Amino acid sequence: VRISELSQRTGVPVATVKYYLREGLLPSGERTGVNQARYGEEHVTRLRLVRALVEVGGVPIAGVKGVLAAIEGPPRPLHDVLGPTQDAITPRPQHPAGPEWDAARAEVAGLVQSLDWQVRPDAPALDQLTGVLLAIRAVSGGDNPDATSCFGMQARLAEELAAVEVGSLAGADPAEAVRGLVVGTVLGGRAFEALRRLAHEDASARTFGGSPSKSPAPGAHRTSQSK
Amino acid sequence: VRISELSQRTGVPVATVKYYLREGLLPSGERTGVNQARYGEEHVTRLRLVRALVEVGGVPIAGVKGVLAAIEGPPRPLHDVLGPTQDAITPRPQHPAGPEWDAARAEVAGLVQSLDWQVRPDAPALDQLTGVLLAIRAVSGGDNPDATSCFGMQARLAEELAAVEVGSLAGADPAEAVRGLVVGTVLGGRAFEALRRLAHEDASARTFGGSPSKSPAPGAHRTSQSK
Repeated sequence: VRISELSQRTGVPVATVKYYLREGLLPSGERTGVNQARYGEEHVTRLRLVRALVEVGGVPIAGVKGVLAAIEGPPRPLHDVLGPTQDAITPRPQHPAGPEWDAARAEVAGLVQSLDWQVRPDAPALDQLTGVLLAIRAVSGGDNPDATSCFGMQARLAEELAAVEVGSLAGADPAEAVRGLVVGTVLGGRAFEALRRLAHEDASARTFGGSPSKSPAPGAHRTSQSK
Repeated sequence: VRISELSQRTGVPVATVKYYLREGLLPSGERTGVNQARYGEEHVTRLRLVRALVEVGGVPIAGVKGVLAAIEGPPRPLHDVLGPTQDAITPRPQHPAGPEWDAARAEVAGLVQSLDWQVRPDAPALDQLTGVLLAIRAVSGGDNPDATSCFGMQARLAEELAAVEVGSLAGADPAEAVRGLVVGTVLGGRAFEALRRLAHEDASARTFGGSPSKSPAPGAHRTSQSK
């Protein structure tokens, strides 16, 4: 198909398709004239993936390159693909060096160890979590909460979620599993962010709300089939 | 204190402090000369909060204004503060209008209804989740997963998390509770993002790993005190 049809089928504007081609996120088409090229199904598939990563996942262009390299590299054990993918999509916080950072970083490492989690000691998410711990302390006005009291409960839930998500990939076709892992990591993260906001709003309505038009009668809630 | 000391105590560069002053994220100090002003403890507290929201929470400047307005507005029921806060920090995806979007949006609304969640029908997180659903479909190559199969399990965990987080604020001093809710919503979201990545890495190591230097002997894991 021509670039205009590629754009139409994926909903990505032609100018953006050209940008992705220049950046190497999309392989060149088969040249059919001075200013024309033909694209195939693999371009449609790739473009949909790039679009999902950029527009919905919020992954920067450089990160997308890393994700694509992880997906399309030579066949490797699934676990070896996950690390580079995580690194590509995890923001690396600029942080001040110093004893305060080092102590918080060690505390985060201690939490991960107490959970018996197997993660690379230089996983960027450890820095990300350290930044959050320091930020919570900076705004909490003096009572210095420790990493376990800040994150312990969330860690247990994250573990439960990850076990199911990763477990569902075992036994899948390897190429499909890599895609599933990457897509799950990026898009699943966005999905949880949105769900968490909705759940917060619901919990707040139940706990602090009270406008009768929004709250069901006492005792009437928590009875849906989903419980 | 002077602006230089304000910068020192909070770790925010003077140029950034001036930028926040211009943007109205930080109230003016007490003028003491043509080019000098004096700042108090409330400036230190505010600056730490703004910094945490911007640098760690990734909230855009316009969003920070919304969050501060929610925190510092006239006393209101907690639940009335949460909505504007969520709106200020939730990215609004640009989405194409059309029957495909409308159908996916209705499906997301149906999921939320089946969960018996009380959320505003125009909560921006509903659009966010719709965008993720369409992105998952676009990259999943034809088998059109529905909203419940994509998000059902995550929704249950989000609900569990939110109940504990919001519940911990009941009975707190109102002003503190508002701060806690806002900080929890923004920073807690970042924390969970990092924890989820770490948990993913751990689950992947257990399921797909196998390098003996990283994995404990079979049966040796899951025995730490945290389980």
